[in-house]
Amino acid sequence: MEIYLDNSATTKCSPAAIKAMKQALEEDFGNPSSMHLKGVEAERSLKKAKETLAKTLKVQPKELILTSGGTESNNTAILGAALANRRAGNRVLTTAVEHSSVAQPMKYLEELGFEVEVLPVNHEGLVSPEVLKEAVTKDTILVSMMYVNNEIGTVQPIAEAAALAKEKNPDVIFHTDAVQAYAKYRIFPKRLGVDLLSVSSHKFHGPKGAGFLYKREKVKIKPLLLGGGQQDGMRSGTDNVPGAVGMAAAAQECYGDLENQVLRMRTCRQRLLDGLACMEHVKINGSTEEQFAAPHIVNASFPGVRSEVLLHALEERGIFVSAGSACSSNKKAGSATLQALGLSKEERESAIRFSFCTDTTTEEIGQAIAVLQEIVPFLRKYSRK
Amino acid sequence: MEIYLDNSATTKCSPAAIKAMKQALEEDFGNPSSMHLKGVEAERSLKKAKETLAKTLKVQPKELILTSGGTESNNTAILGAALANRRAGNRVLTTAVEHSSVAQPMKYLEELGFEVEVLPVNHEGLVSPEVLKEAVTKDTILVSMMYVNNEIGTVQPIAEAAALAKEKNPDVIFHTDAVQAYAKYRIFPKRLGVDLLSVSSHKFHGPKGAGFLYKREKVKIKPLLLGGGQQDGMRSGTDNVPGAVGMAAAAQECYGDLENQVLRMRTCRQRLLDGLACMEHVKINGSTEEQFAAPHIVNASFPGVRSEVLLHALEERGIFVSAGSACSSNKKAGSATLQALGLSKEERESAIRFSFCTDTTTEEIGQAIAVLQEIVPFLRKYSRK
Repeated sequence: MEIYLDNSATTKCSPAAIKAMKQALEEDFGNPSSMHLKGVEAERSLKKAKETLAKTLKVQPKELILTSGGTESNNTAILGAALANRRAGNRVLTTAVEHSSVAQPMKYLEELGFEVEVLPVNHEGLVSPEVLKEAVTKDTILVSMMYVNNEIGTVQPIAEAAALAKEKNPDVIFHTDAVQAYAKYRIFPKRLGVDLLSVSSHKFHGPKGAGFLYKREKVKIKPLLLGGGQQDGMRSGTDNVPGAVGMAAAAQECYGDLENQVLRMRTCRQRLLDGLACMEHVKINGSTEEQFAAPHIVNASFPGVRSEVLLHALEERGIFVSAGSACSSNKKAGSATLQALGLSKEERESAIRFSFCTDTTTEEIGQAIAVLQEIVPFLRKYSRK
Repeated sequence: MEIYLDNSATTKCSPAAIKAMKQALEEDFGNPSSMHLKGVEAERSLKKAKETLAKTLKVQPKELILTSGGTESNNTAILGAALANRRAGNRVLTTAVEHSSVAQPMKYLEELGFEVEVLPVNHEGLVSPEVLKEAVTKDTILVSMMYVNNEIGTVQPIAEAAALAKEKNPDVIFHTDAVQAYAKYRIFPKRLGVDLLSVSSHKFHGPKGAGFLYKREKVKIKPLLLGGGQQDGMRSGTDNVPGAVGMAAAAQECYGDLENQVLRMRTCRQRLLDGLACMEHVKINGSTEEQFAAPHIVNASFPGVRSEVLLHALEERGIFVSAGSACSSNKKAGSATLQALGLSKEERESAIRFSFCTDTTTEEIGQAIAVLQEIVPFLRKYSRK
């Protein structure tokens, strides 16, 4: 038995994505910057990939910057926007529940002399749009607020937040880290009032090493990677054609059947929540309201059992989950997100993230629940000894 | 007929590299940062890839930082070293023939207030180690000198330059862009006195979107990508496992048979030089001495025919070459390297780069020469009309 419930860490690359990559690796292998036919063919593959991706967001292909993944997208957005717009102001806003690839660039901006304000969240991980509006001043150049939290799945009210922020200061640049939201929601940046939006390919069955940043045409940013001037100078370096076409193929598959995929994930989620509700002393972290809870993430604390102990006990039964986010699970620091929710130390240190993809079945969830119901009481008893 | 002589722009991914990637995409798809078995397996693949790559340079695996390619490696090296060592001094040295992914970060350092001195080259594209030594002061923190020039194939005297630079100032950090040298030379940074060394995977039959930076253990740099703290905090972002294993497989193939591969390329090079020597008014750009000329690059000017015209005429016959480097061929700016050699405008604007790989055959070169001998006189005549 092998039940992979760690899809927010990474997903398995889809056959369609691998097929597209193989074609780019074996046949259209040219450098898109080359002037001859081999380059033109590669450039055409790249263009097609950008068009496919742009369509999913209803934006122009030239508004997409292909990157090496979510971290580069977030770094480019935050450092790029802040450094390019410093004349307009020195103030940057973010939230207490951001991914480290947003939080760390924010720390760096502080070192560079920017004033960074970190907005608090409520016990469900939600930022108040009113509090955000209050914090926006005429010196505020950038707001970065994640779309779906990677640890607890909480969905921020992005449209409302962007509208209120821009009501207060129309020049503010609004960035959202949509790494966990893309391919789970239909996201239309123009309608949402979002200027910069980060996506990572391997979170939706595309390959690792690929991602993109949507940048609204008129938004100015300083590029992070300097060199040959590829992608209109916004991201130098030979374009990763296999990565781009693999990502595009995966995106097309997800968005071609999105409502069904989301329904399947929601059904799994509900099944897991129902199962956990039957267990004693389990705390669900995140929002209980469907509109504020992503379809593919459940975070729960099992007080009395340390996360790593439960993780490895589940692993022995072939069930793969996460303690916190994979992106920081190698570190001892503990989750800033869980801390921001106001969880107790015991709740934080017993938190497990279950995350699904479209291939996850309710049967798998049923099996996972059966295992949890068996081993959690046992581990609690054992830990107490 | 299809004769691909643009291998310095990009190479075709090798079957072994594709096979390794496929395994990582389909089976070992976990996130190396995940604590469970799927993560451990992916981490193991990554570790093995690093070990393979480290062996080729005789360095420690932990001295390698995996990146998204040559541009990121160069940017990380130059911006990272300069920003991390500013207290030690404000002066940085480079050469007039660097790739744009070195030259552009240097321009940015100037904007940040660093004093950047660009060393001249002789008519063969060689930097004088004595001139370099002269330019090194106690305020000099970084020297960046490319190993093999991407346009003309000139090989800089790296060992001598590094030794002289460090004789003058033992604290200077020596970086070399080895993107066109790796997998063509046996390169041992410790012996060469090199502290930072950049490599790009797709230049030696690995996939695009992958590369690495060798960083001597004790050298301090500021990371370019901030976030989850992967790779000892030196390069955040989910590790691109398929890219890394593909790159390692390609490197292993090249270095397993390096002397033969180089011999084949040298034979092709000599064949092309012999053929060009029989043509009227052809100027070879770069060094004529084997020790200063890379095995896989020939750059020649055909005065009287514009580069693009010749490139497209060759393309019609199925022969793919480059006008300047692919990395800047989309731009009108012209080659800084050819300018630095002191070429006339006509020589610069009629320059063509032929670049080989281990699969290039002397038969192909023979065919290319025959086509050149046929069409160059014709195009010259036509242009004069």
